Amino acid sequence: MAYNRHVHGGNLYEASKVYGISSSQILDYSANINPLGIPDVLRDILISNIDNLVNYPDPECNDLRNHISKYLSLPNENIVIGNGASEIIFLLFNALKPGKVLIPAPTFAEYAKAAESSGARVEYLELKESEDFKLDIELLVENASRGINAVVLCNPNNPTSTLVTKDDMSELISRLHTQGIYIVIDEAFIELTAGGNSNSVSDLVHTYDNLFIVRAFTKIFAIPGLRLGYGLGDKKLVKSMWDMKMPWSVNSLACSTGKMLPEGGEYMEKTSKWLVHEKKWLFEELSKIGVIKVFEPQTNFILAKILDEELNAHRLRDTMAAQGILIRDASNFMFLNGRFFRVAVKDRKSNEIFVEKLRNVLI
Amino acid sequence: MAYNRHVHGGNLYEASKVYGISSSQILDYSANINPLGIPDVLRDILISNIDNLVNYPDPECNDLRNHISKYLSLPNENIVIGNGASEIIFLLFNALKPGKVLIPAPTFAEYAKAAESSGARVEYLELKESEDFKLDIELLVENASRGINAVVLCNPNNPTSTLVTKDDMSELISRLHTQGIYIVIDEAFIELTAGGNSNSVSDLVHTYDNLFIVRAFTKIFAIPGLRLGYGLGDKKLVKSMWDMKMPWSVNSLACSTGKMLPEGGEYMEKTSKWLVHEKKWLFEELSKIGVIKVFEPQTNFILAKILDEELNAHRLRDTMAAQGILIRDASNFMFLNGRFFRVAVKDRKSNEIFVEKLRNVLI
Repeated sequence: MAYNRHVHGGNLYEASKVYGISSSQILDYSANINPLGIPDVLRDILISNIDNLVNYPDPECNDLRNHISKYLSLPNENIVIGNGASEIIFLLFNALKPGKVLIPAPTFAEYAKAAESSGARVEYLELKESEDFKLDIELLVENASRGINAVVLCNPNNPTSTLVTKDDMSELISRLHTQGIYIVIDEAFIELTAGGNSNSVSDLVHTYDNLFIVRAFTKIFAIPGLRLGYGLGDKKLVKSMWDMKMPWSVNSLACSTGKMLPEGGEYMEKTSKWLVHEKKWLFEELSKIGVIKVFEPQTNFILAKILDEELNAHRLRDTMAAQGILIRDASNFMFLNGRFFRVAVKDRKSNEIFVEKLRNVLI
Repeated sequence: MAYNRHVHGGNLYEASKVYGISSSQILDYSANINPLGIPDVLRDILISNIDNLVNYPDPECNDLRNHISKYLSLPNENIVIGNGASEIIFLLFNALKPGKVLIPAPTFAEYAKAAESSGARVEYLELKESEDFKLDIELLVENASRGINAVVLCNPNNPTSTLVTKDDMSELISRLHTQGIYIVIDEAFIELTAGGNSNSVSDLVHTYDNLFIVRAFTKIFAIPGLRLGYGLGDKKLVKSMWDMKMPWSVNSLACSTGKMLPEGGEYMEKTSKWLVHEKKWLFEELSKIGVIKVFEPQTNFILAKILDEELNAHRLRDTMAAQGILIRDASNFMFLNGRFFRVAVKDRKSNEIFVEKLRNVLI
């Protein structure tokens, strides 16, 4: 499969080159990273593990798995570690080889690419703008029952910032289980919802062998540069993913990240406080602009639609970028048109600058 | 493809678990890493780049490519970066899709795995113990001319520690070029030979479009934990490898490694001095033991064969490991039997301990 590097959010380097602005001066609203930055505890752990780079990484990432195991109360054998969520998703489909996959969309495009690269046929269930992109579980089960082998969901969903509640998700998993349909849930942003891990269905991995959960520390601990994702699922499936995996794809600094989990409480609390206030503030301020429709966010990013028919997200992105602010043109997400864009929720100071610049461009 | 993590060298973590010795107390002679450790310049670069982990890595690794470009006097367009040499090798075969591959062996098993996973049929040319495992170029060209699409060599070769001279290699490349046969040369250890880069054929990438070179900073800069390899080849092939690659498989700290290249002179000289003296010393000391046959090394590891028919490399490995020293049982390399093992060349103090313990076990 071929990747287009330019359609993903977060290509600071490309933008810096194209617009001639140094990457440190760019406000990146296209990547959804915790603006609190790398936790101090984690920075110290990384520095103290630099000398350990003289050894190959542990190919089984046992120390990291032990920490995740305690963090989520799941046995080691249910946990697989990868080079970002991307490696987990590709390994998963190659291990699973589902014939027909159903994906509610718009959503992260990587699921379809990974499914197709494993030989699967992909069908989509449209999440409707008129329903604020909320998932209709009845309709999903109905569609899945027509010969689908696996359903893939992102929760909270990228780019719509919608969240399926734990109760609804549990019911969905159970109903698909009854029908022998696999369900893959990408919870990469779950710690960045109000309630955090309490919204996760990770505790159901014990109960349902049709459930696989994709997770990452990338967003919550602000370390996308380090490359670290993980997956939670049935022991047999997890073992076959380990067997297929290139050894050492996860570097040893990424492996050391687990040591921060027992000490992350304070950072998580600060994050939660910031998130609850700031996503509400940014949503309200953006809503006031008027020439855009803003969808209420459940996580640290917001989807918006330009109402002015003269303007499109592509041009908006370019105009903003020329002023040093990156936004995500969301028009290449399935079922979205050229007027959708996505922005991260950052710290108040940045958000104020962002809202002002966006207002100036739009009005 | 399935990997057996236990047959590679350098699984300190596994050994630590099996033998109940803390990994910091183990002398690891199974991994061939520069014992001078991480250069101070590089350690500083890594620490100063930790805060940059809040951004996704540059998917095109442009800064690193610029540095490698200057280091080896090759245009950026001829350089592809990967998560270790492993990713480069797998990408290469998937881009190349050669029907029939010829591999002189014993050598690193990853080439055959990668070739087979791309659908190729692999043939071997035996490097003979009676000829000290030296490559017979005449015989290689003769064998290659019988319908082979690509030849894969490791130079200096792992595990035999033999080196094909630059003159011989140039001749080989030219003759294979005439016949339209691809040649892949893994130069992962080239900086750890006497003469270093002057033994490399990287300057021939300009001249011969059938040449691809695999390289890494892992061994020379003692950073196997960081995951960084690269490849040099024809622009069109390199582009197709970039297109196939998972975005961001190379973490941003690995990308920052390039900044050390312009400042690495002193470290390289120290390495070269250590290498020339120490590989000679260790070779001579091992040769004095008497119950093993030692093959003269051209790089920072040594292949040896147990002459005592009562003993095998597997048992030797276990006995040494129980005393806190890891060696590489080399019996699973193609064409080697159960009595071969490989050891790294380390610093004098470690080498003295190693020689004494090995002598005690063997005699």
